[in-house]
Amino acid sequence: MQVDLPDVLSEVSAQFERYEKALVSNDVAVLDQLFRADPRTLRYGIGENLYGYDAIVAFRAARSPIGLNRTTARTVISTYGRDTAVASTLFYRDTLPGKVGRQMQTWVRFAEGWKIVAAHVSIIDEGGTPRGQKA
Amino acid sequence: MQVDLPDVLSEVSAQFERYEKALVSNDVAVLDQLFRADPRTLRYGIGENLYGYDAIVAFRAARSPIGLNRTTARTVISTYGRDTAVASTLFYRDTLPGKVGRQMQTWVRFAEGWKIVAAHVSIIDEGGTPRGQKA
Repeated sequence: MQVDLPDVLSEVSAQFERYEKALVSNDVAVLDQLFRADPRTLRYGIGENLYGYDAIVAFRAARSPIGLNRTTARTVISTYGRDTAVASTLFYRDTLPGKVGRQMQTWVRFAEGWKIVAAHVSIIDEGGTPRGQKA
Repeated sequence: MQVDLPDVLSEVSAQFERYEKALVSNDVAVLDQLFRADPRTLRYGIGENLYGYDAIVAFRAARSPIGLNRTTARTVISTYGRDTAVASTLFYRDTLPGKVGRQMQTWVRFAEGWKIVAAHVSIIDEGGTPRGQKA
């Protein structure tokens, strides 16, 4: 298993940046394109659990484009072999003071290119466990 | 890219079940063994962000073993090729009424076996977006 091959890392980083730009500008066509069109594709969002590509596309189409701007921090992209990567980042929004977002995506290379097959986004209080909850 | 090859799916499912048993019984040795021992390994927990294997091991060692029991629901395991999988599940705890947990793990096969390279766990209100937050 070859980890963090430079050319693979470069490819995935470019797709990750493309996703981020599309997200803050609400470019729904690009967001939809970057998720794999398959019933297996899964997205746990901040307030919803979306099973399958169709549910994800419907969510994007229905979402307000207001307030999507954010800054990212501590982005980590790691690749495993030539066809798999995980991209993780923290994010902050002016509309969510005292909170930090976490976004984690698993990317897989298919014949049609790199696609997100699973994503999980959540918000927590910055600086520690909020209510003694356990994972 | 061969998706959901039966033998690969069977292998990962067995490791996923092993993880779940270790989690509810707080078998820290098995939990530690199932995460890849590498600085890249990342775990976004319910209330903490853990960068690298050492931080994850320290968190497990410090955690109270009380109240870890849970039931899972809508578990989805998908495999991509022979060396990559994503395992996702909802979970519920008696101590968290009205809440649903989401756990997502990316597994990669190394020479030493299947390991979790990235995990994200979060808790949300059951049944919808709590405060109009956006991902």
